[in-house]
Amino acid sequence: MMPVPEGIKAALTAWGSALPEGAVLSTDEILTRYARSTAPRATRPCAVLYPESTEHVSALLRIASAHRVPVYPISRGKNWGYGDACAPTDGAAIADLSRMNRILEVNGELGCALIEPGVTQQQLYERVQQEAPGFWMDCSGAGCGASVLGNAIDRGFGHTPYGDHVRSTCGMEIVLADGRVLHTGFGHFDAAKAAHVYPYGVGPILDGLFMQSNLGIVTRLGVWLYPAPEAFRFFYIGVAREDGLQALIDALRPLRLRGILNSAVHIGNDLRIISSLRRYPWRQTGGKTPLPEPVREQLRREFGVSAWNVSGSLTGTRSQVRGAAKALRRAVAGHGKLVFVTDTKLSLGRTAVAFLNRFGLGRVMARQLEGLTPNYGLLKGIPTDAPLLGTQWRLRHPPETGTADPLDTGCGLLWISPVLPLRGADATALLERVEPLFRDYGFELLVTFTMLNERAMVAILNMAFDKADPRETVSAQACYDAVMGSLMKSGYIPYRVNVGGMHKLHTPGDTFWQTAQNLKHALDPGAIIAPGRYIPPL
Amino acid sequence: MMPVPEGIKAALTAWGSALPEGAVLSTDEILTRYARSTAPRATRPCAVLYPESTEHVSALLRIASAHRVPVYPISRGKNWGYGDACAPTDGAAIADLSRMNRILEVNGELGCALIEPGVTQQQLYERVQQEAPGFWMDCSGAGCGASVLGNAIDRGFGHTPYGDHVRSTCGMEIVLADGRVLHTGFGHFDAAKAAHVYPYGVGPILDGLFMQSNLGIVTRLGVWLYPAPEAFRFFYIGVAREDGLQALIDALRPLRLRGILNSAVHIGNDLRIISSLRRYPWRQTGGKTPLPEPVREQLRREFGVSAWNVSGSLTGTRSQVRGAAKALRRAVAGHGKLVFVTDTKLSLGRTAVAFLNRFGLGRVMARQLEGLTPNYGLLKGIPTDAPLLGTQWRLRHPPETGTADPLDTGCGLLWISPVLPLRGADATALLERVEPLFRDYGFELLVTFTMLNERAMVAILNMAFDKADPRETVSAQACYDAVMGSLMKSGYIPYRVNVGGMHKLHTPGDTFWQTAQNLKHALDPGAIIAPGRYIPPL
Repeated sequence: MMPVPEGIKAALTAWGSALPEGAVLSTDEILTRYARSTAPRATRPCAVLYPESTEHVSALLRIASAHRVPVYPISRGKNWGYGDACAPTDGAAIADLSRMNRILEVNGELGCALIEPGVTQQQLYERVQQEAPGFWMDCSGAGCGASVLGNAIDRGFGHTPYGDHVRSTCGMEIVLADGRVLHTGFGHFDAAKAAHVYPYGVGPILDGLFMQSNLGIVTRLGVWLYPAPEAFRFFYIGVAREDGLQALIDALRPLRLRGILNSAVHIGNDLRIISSLRRYPWRQTGGKTPLPEPVREQLRREFGVSAWNVSGSLTGTRSQVRGAAKALRRAVAGHGKLVFVTDTKLSLGRTAVAFLNRFGLGRVMARQLEGLTPNYGLLKGIPTDAPLLGTQWRLRHPPETGTADPLDTGCGLLWISPVLPLRGADATALLERVEPLFRDYGFELLVTFTMLNERAMVAILNMAFDKADPRETVSAQACYDAVMGSLMKSGYIPYRVNVGGMHKLHTPGDTFWQTAQNLKHALDPGAIIAPGRYIPPL
Repeated sequence: MMPVPEGIKAALTAWGSALPEGAVLSTDEILTRYARSTAPRATRPCAVLYPESTEHVSALLRIASAHRVPVYPISRGKNWGYGDACAPTDGAAIADLSRMNRILEVNGELGCALIEPGVTQQQLYERVQQEAPGFWMDCSGAGCGASVLGNAIDRGFGHTPYGDHVRSTCGMEIVLADGRVLHTGFGHFDAAKAAHVYPYGVGPILDGLFMQSNLGIVTRLGVWLYPAPEAFRFFYIGVAREDGLQALIDALRPLRLRGILNSAVHIGNDLRIISSLRRYPWRQTGGKTPLPEPVREQLRREFGVSAWNVSGSLTGTRSQVRGAAKALRRAVAGHGKLVFVTDTKLSLGRTAVAFLNRFGLGRVMARQLEGLTPNYGLLKGIPTDAPLLGTQWRLRHPPETGTADPLDTGCGLLWISPVLPLRGADATALLERVEPLFRDYGFELLVTFTMLNERAMVAILNMAFDKADPRETVSAQACYDAVMGSLMKSGYIPYRVNVGGMHKLHTPGDTFWQTAQNLKHALDPGAIIAPGRYIPPL
């Protein structure tokens, strides 16, 4: 066990008095547990704190300031592939907010909820079903146990028309470094009536400051719920040729711009789909990487996937959905094979079977269902752990059971997530840039494009590797560095970054980061909260 | 002419060297011109500066900082009823950005534009028509000559589905107090591809800081354009009884929540509509105020308006609009009389005539058309000066010609604009609170409710008075103070405030305003930019 410096020792004592019994842990076992990461390098905390209320967070920050111990807040610690539960630097006290897991309000009239950081997707999903049955929550692909609040303030996205969580959250409570409690929007006015229905309040809008940053600890968030539509239609488009992507994106753009497509439209390449159905074919390739082209062709045929696999949903009134389906059919003609899943009365499983049969995919297997149903559920705001299975792609020795937590399986995982304009030519330019780099470092490209709004999409490049293989781990980090460097240079900037890669965003003399540093210094002069997180240290 | 203190004198000399010929004015005539206001009290600047570029703004702010002269930026100075072109305090140098009026880009593929502060609604409207004919701009009711950028960063709202300008603008350029130039979103990265299509960039979102504040001068703004829908249908709902409003709002809420109603839905009381058609009936009332009930009844009949007059539009594909119309008809049944204007082939004037005839309003007069067509245009993003005529309601001696600039007519005008949840009971509670106060001070309530998003609406209380009447001006200020006080107490907080009323937002010890002050001090330690604007001075 590492020696405990005096400041930390004093802080631990003070925290022990201020927080409930069992809320301050610093045993070797717990620190080791929190020092696990899917990234090549992890960091080790000095303690783990479990506040149970906003008041506890205030108290723990005041103590941290007094003793100059940095605090790194996590909600549920499921930030897999972007840093997990790890702080950017060693020696921070992790403030694990998982015990602050109250759903303070669900309003079935106006369609909103008020939650604490520890509330999981599954927990909110169940409460909404009970108390606001006319609404859906919007959930991300981060799994059932992930925090709704934590994911939202890191700008994770969902799949219903409320998938942009900057737009579909409203009103924050934040604890500042000195322990003061800030309410944004109208929330700081006595008896405010519109605190969780109108996001901007009066005066400057401060909410954005507390996303992807380290300027405060968000302890409450208003979340808007999507009114369950009268009609819902899942669609799938298969694009046979790799070079068919560009034209397809351009064909879909006018529909997304006009809101005829209003869900997140998700486009996965063959390997990204296959990776959620099976692991890397180590035997067939004799251990060779990257994946040889003939084996790839074989896998494609075996799983009946296309070069590009597009899915999304149409929602609205029955006639709106009918009209949207017609427009989609017209747009896709000549660019891909479009299939609708219309019979919502079928169970999820039976729907998927029907879907595959209609598409003429031949062998309908249970594993194929696994690969297709999760996205179907996400489009209806149903949380699922299934997408996490894709993180096991490169494991040589997979776990016996399909445990979803990548930290339990030794998965290596780094997401690279550049944003690009919603234009086919940009997708092509991006692929031409990154695909050779992945190959050079011994990886095959696993990629999805998701339409985030009416004008932009994000490419999620899945850098999956096996942490048990030291050489592959080194290659993964080198590949990550090369791809990030290339993307930054070409102007395809990521929307979100692994804690280990944040310095790559910074160039000297950039007024944006200087301004962010000025703001950090103003709100947290001692650099107590999450130093190094997005905003470069002074 | 007021004596010129040494600091201002030195600053004027330095500005004279740094800015183009004729860009620094401080004659008595110009200062008097900029000291006009629709508010009871105006402030007088020490100079007016006309920068033509971002570099000029940097230079003028550096000089202002050196000589400690506050600078108040205006875009086109049309912030009528909220402070016009006036700074909160006397003696500021007005930075009039009207010469920075370039439209730097119109993208007809992705539907966005990049503009400077001096660009007017009319100017952008015309460019979009030429260069992106598949798109509409969204415009506010502030008139043809109002600034698009200035209105947006003060959170003015428009009437198409892109009416929330926080959501439909993307990427800012800002000059900070020390002259540095900040680009938000992805804009600060070299060669950034998604700067004006994805609003959040990576790291904290800073844009909101520069709305309704004084933390910088916004010199460029990305604006999203609304894809012209395949179908458009204007609707009008007349609600005969005053107490019919509550049920109507509750009936419309599910439609607004579901996006079946996706434009700004606008609900005006009888007098708000009448005020855009004629002035106060001074003769009929023998000069008595507030308006006696029998005269009000008579005016209602004369102009064929209802107690509540609802208008909005349905947009989308033809089948979407058909479906929406059906849903609207079902919702409104029993709550009001619904009329659609479907024949878009008719000219605007003929449409309105047809509309009135169909509604059986009897006497169709040119002045009625004036009152109804402007909103029709706004719903299609066509700027208009017509709503400004309503500001003349209380004038005893109106201008010979119907000039739109309230500063030229001696109009007194104070808007009070509380936000409330989209619930009928809140509208009733608000009216019960403010209507007696208006009456007590000799005013009749002119009010609109506008649905700003899926869950909230804003009530715009129109405090129109005659600045030529000193007693009425005093009463107007007293009424404003009483109404604001009552609303703040009841939690119906305004979304936007007159420069003279901003201190009413502040209560001692409010962490929100303290935080805003901390940020102000970090970015503008000399309090050079617009001191007193929204953020309380330190």
